[in-house]
Amino acid sequence: MLEDALRTVLRTAAAPTTCAGRTDAGVHARGQVVHLDVTREAYERTADVLGQRLVGVLPADLGLRSVAVAPAGFDARFSSLWRRYAYRVSDAPFGVDPLRRHEVLHHRRPLDVGRMVEASAGLLGEHDFAAFCRRREGATTVRTLLELSWARPPTEQQDTGLVVGRVVADAFCHSMVRALVGALLAVGDGRRPVGWPAQVLAGRERVADVQVAPAHGLTLEEVRYPPDSQLADRALVTRRLRPVRDLPSTEPGSAP
Amino acid sequence: MLEDALRTVLRTAAAPTTCAGRTDAGVHARGQVVHLDVTREAYERTADVLGQRLVGVLPADLGLRSVAVAPAGFDARFSSLWRRYAYRVSDAPFGVDPLRRHEVLHHRRPLDVGRMVEASAGLLGEHDFAAFCRRREGATTVRTLLELSWARPPTEQQDTGLVVGRVVADAFCHSMVRALVGALLAVGDGRRPVGWPAQVLAGRERVADVQVAPAHGLTLEEVRYPPDSQLADRALVTRRLRPVRDLPSTEPGSAP
Repeated sequence: MLEDALRTVLRTAAAPTTCAGRTDAGVHARGQVVHLDVTREAYERTADVLGQRLVGVLPADLGLRSVAVAPAGFDARFSSLWRRYAYRVSDAPFGVDPLRRHEVLHHRRPLDVGRMVEASAGLLGEHDFAAFCRRREGATTVRTLLELSWARPPTEQQDTGLVVGRVVADAFCHSMVRALVGALLAVGDGRRPVGWPAQVLAGRERVADVQVAPAHGLTLEEVRYPPDSQLADRALVTRRLRPVRDLPSTEPGSAP
Repeated sequence: MLEDALRTVLRTAAAPTTCAGRTDAGVHARGQVVHLDVTREAYERTADVLGQRLVGVLPADLGLRSVAVAPAGFDARFSSLWRRYAYRVSDAPFGVDPLRRHEVLHHRRPLDVGRMVEASAGLLGEHDFAAFCRRREGATTVRTLLELSWARPPTEQQDTGLVVGRVVADAFCHSMVRALVGALLAVGDGRRPVGWPAQVLAGRERVADVQVAPAHGLTLEEVRYPPDSQLADRALVTRRLRPVRDLPSTEPGSAP
């Protein structure tokens, strides 16, 4: 969709993009970052009006926040330091605010957020997340989980009335966030003990009783990059850490 | 829709409801209040499960927040003290967050919120709002505007990134909120002077150059009632103030 719009606006035969995090069908991305290379001619023809023209041809469910010339060394996928996702759940007895039903999961059992916070703490840091990933041949499933927190935002704050998970990692392997959330919801509603997600992690084997949470509660909120001077170095480091980079599952930005 | 669901769940031939504020097509109502009379038999059969059963049969775009037995003297329409609406606008250069496009208006010109606040102050209080209402024979257009304020909520707050109008009145006549918003947007983007909405108000005549703002930016957020002991008295007062209450436009809760 975005590439179609770019081809139209840039008047080029192809407009291959690189994005920071690819998301499964149904996962939202409010903070997606995408780069592409353009010819100097196409750039000079459209620089000032590219954003407005793109908005004119993009479908209504695909938004644009800003357009800019990337600094030297920038790679939307490999230069990133971390990605932040939010998972939004409502355990209100009668379900989700209809205006937010496409981005909030309705969980039918009441959630004890304190238990979810406690269980999440045992998952932080660098681990082999194979138990929460769809494994692919030759791809590492080692990731560094930088933050995994849960809260009920207070009145007047964004997302008041919901339970919101905040998940930050250098990168995610396929279905990882949704598998972590699924395990933690089972702790939150009392079906599993607090120590269970850490046990599953330690097993390093995908287990059938981790239910992958539905896609529509998940939103990619932010991708963070280092200062401009470190962009190229960061991309080098990332490519070295995940060397089998031609396989989709090894990409830092693969679908979570 | 709600009445259909109630008929199904209560197993009655009819379930006529009274609601606090009727809204035009496209206007949202997050804080709607509805009452209906049920037979003791229907009540006893469903009291504990009415909410869950309703949720089971309501369409996905119609939510339920709570169900309760009304206190004596309660009337969803006539007992209310005031209604609060929010009007949400984005003047971001590239439009509205796709996840909120059904409840936020995209305004293509940048808005000066300070001008909108100043212009709104001149409209507060009890006035004949005929200039902002669809007039109907025999119906009063006098209303008391209790609050009309505009803000860009700060980061982390609900609605950050938007311009949000907060409109409170004892009652609204038809299209009144949307006509007020339309006039104030014209002030905010510089097409009209700050004093213009108050001039229009003083004219007491509907003028063609007030553009009624689109329905989808408007949400009924809250209906406030007095303490239980005053419910019946309040309903008496309201019915006396708006005596021609059989005409739709004179009802306190008519579509804004």
